[in-house]
Amino acid sequence: MGAIDKFNFRADEADSLLCVGLDPQIDKMPSRFRRMEFPLFAFNQYIIELTHEFTAAFKPNIAFYESHGAKGVQQLQMTLDFLKENHPSIFTICDAKRGDIGNTNQHYIRFIYDELGFDAITLHPYLGKEALQPFLDRKDKASIILCRTSNGGSGEIQDLVIEGKPLWEHIAQKVAWDWNFNSNCMMVVAATYPRDIKRVRNIAGEMTFLIPGVGAQGGEVIQAVNEGLNHANKGIIINSSRGIIYAVNPSEEARNLRDTINMHRIVV
Amino acid sequence: MGAIDKFNFRADEADSLLCVGLDPQIDKMPSRFRRMEFPLFAFNQYIIELTHEFTAAFKPNIAFYESHGAKGVQQLQMTLDFLKENHPSIFTICDAKRGDIGNTNQHYIRFIYDELGFDAITLHPYLGKEALQPFLDRKDKASIILCRTSNGGSGEIQDLVIEGKPLWEHIAQKVAWDWNFNSNCMMVVAATYPRDIKRVRNIAGEMTFLIPGVGAQGGEVIQAVNEGLNHANKGIIINSSRGIIYAVNPSEEARNLRDTINMHRIVV
Repeated sequence: MGAIDKFNFRADEADSLLCVGLDPQIDKMPSRFRRMEFPLFAFNQYIIELTHEFTAAFKPNIAFYESHGAKGVQQLQMTLDFLKENHPSIFTICDAKRGDIGNTNQHYIRFIYDELGFDAITLHPYLGKEALQPFLDRKDKASIILCRTSNGGSGEIQDLVIEGKPLWEHIAQKVAWDWNFNSNCMMVVAATYPRDIKRVRNIAGEMTFLIPGVGAQGGEVIQAVNEGLNHANKGIIINSSRGIIYAVNPSEEARNLRDTINMHRIVV
Repeated sequence: MGAIDKFNFRADEADSLLCVGLDPQIDKMPSRFRRMEFPLFAFNQYIIELTHEFTAAFKPNIAFYESHGAKGVQQLQMTLDFLKENHPSIFTICDAKRGDIGNTNQHYIRFIYDELGFDAITLHPYLGKEALQPFLDRKDKASIILCRTSNGGSGEIQDLVIEGKPLWEHIAQKVAWDWNFNSNCMMVVAATYPRDIKRVRNIAGEMTFLIPGVGAQGGEVIQAVNEGLNHANKGIIINSSRGIIYAVNPSEEARNLRDTINMHRIVV
């Protein structure tokens, strides 16, 4: 089973297109976790148990673990092991935003795919297909290419116009029409630019998009769903991190967002 | 003292513009290291001791450590601690090619600058200045932005033409004329495209370039030096990784490359 199939299977199983971002911060988590030996892992375990039934995917951003050095990396491994053991059908995304030359990417692959066991990774496009080839060659894993990012200043580079079209649209075309030769690519298209989601959908056929930027970053869920869905009534992974994991009731927050997304899915 | 000053001071001290890439691979290092408890660190220590007197900078690529999980990160920390203890004047570059949204970049900063203690980091430009601001704000550290990378397929994205100029040239202008407000930016400009080094030099005034791609990747040292030097007879950091660390005699290899670079520096 390919990685995209795994996501689609889980999306049906949980009737969910929701992704929960596991970005634990010591100063934001309930104080009882802070005194534990492995606070990042303990907090993740708590969030996973509260939200997994409403969740298609979990997405740890690796920076939140690396900032704690070797012990942080260890707790990321513990989190992935916990997911594999208890919720093996849930899709796992390493939000790493990597992108090096081919020779070096092999090392990221070994770590993120083979050691940690993630199903997918987010990647920068700037070095081109040839550099990312080791990722693209992994038919069992999904390469999620940054196309249109959620940050306020993303247009500085991404909106530069080439032959009448912004750079992000060229990236979308390259990924959809060339880099996706193994049908294992996804793209990051932010909820903060809903009109652009529609434009990427027109380019990308049935491909799946990872959509960050709802909640704390201000993007609208409803528009993202309306513009993003593919003909299979899926094709989007809507991520929320801070809005769920630091909520008073993470379980309710996850269910509400899952349900809001589902209310706007086309009835098939 | 700013990070660029630190580099310039060391370049004068060692009469060197050479950077040695500390990219240890178990299967390539001499067999005696493989049986040790911390083989990456032991090998690095050996390379540092053999090459430091000819070296302005050391550049570990973090992927080579992360591929060994928590224990790899620990050995990167040990390497940086060893350098700080024994060779504090040598400039240290974390080749991480990071680039996330601002909120997340704070975590990379905490890890790479404040925990590991690197002087500089390599960064992707795709998310724009606003996202990289936390790096740019660190006056005591250098942000090294990817401009023209050494891989064979780098042109796929980087050569896309905007208003008559390739994307990499727009990146060079943005970095030189806007992102460098703290005078703490450098750029990656590969030795594999020597004519482009000259074009970036014409844009970038006296800025310093990190130049990969000599040796294993086929770039010419002499051309890179000729095209890259600034008016202070510096402004370039020529990196070699595999060509030095896996040589039969790493010390001789480092000295030779240092001397080759120096032979082509303008006599001041």
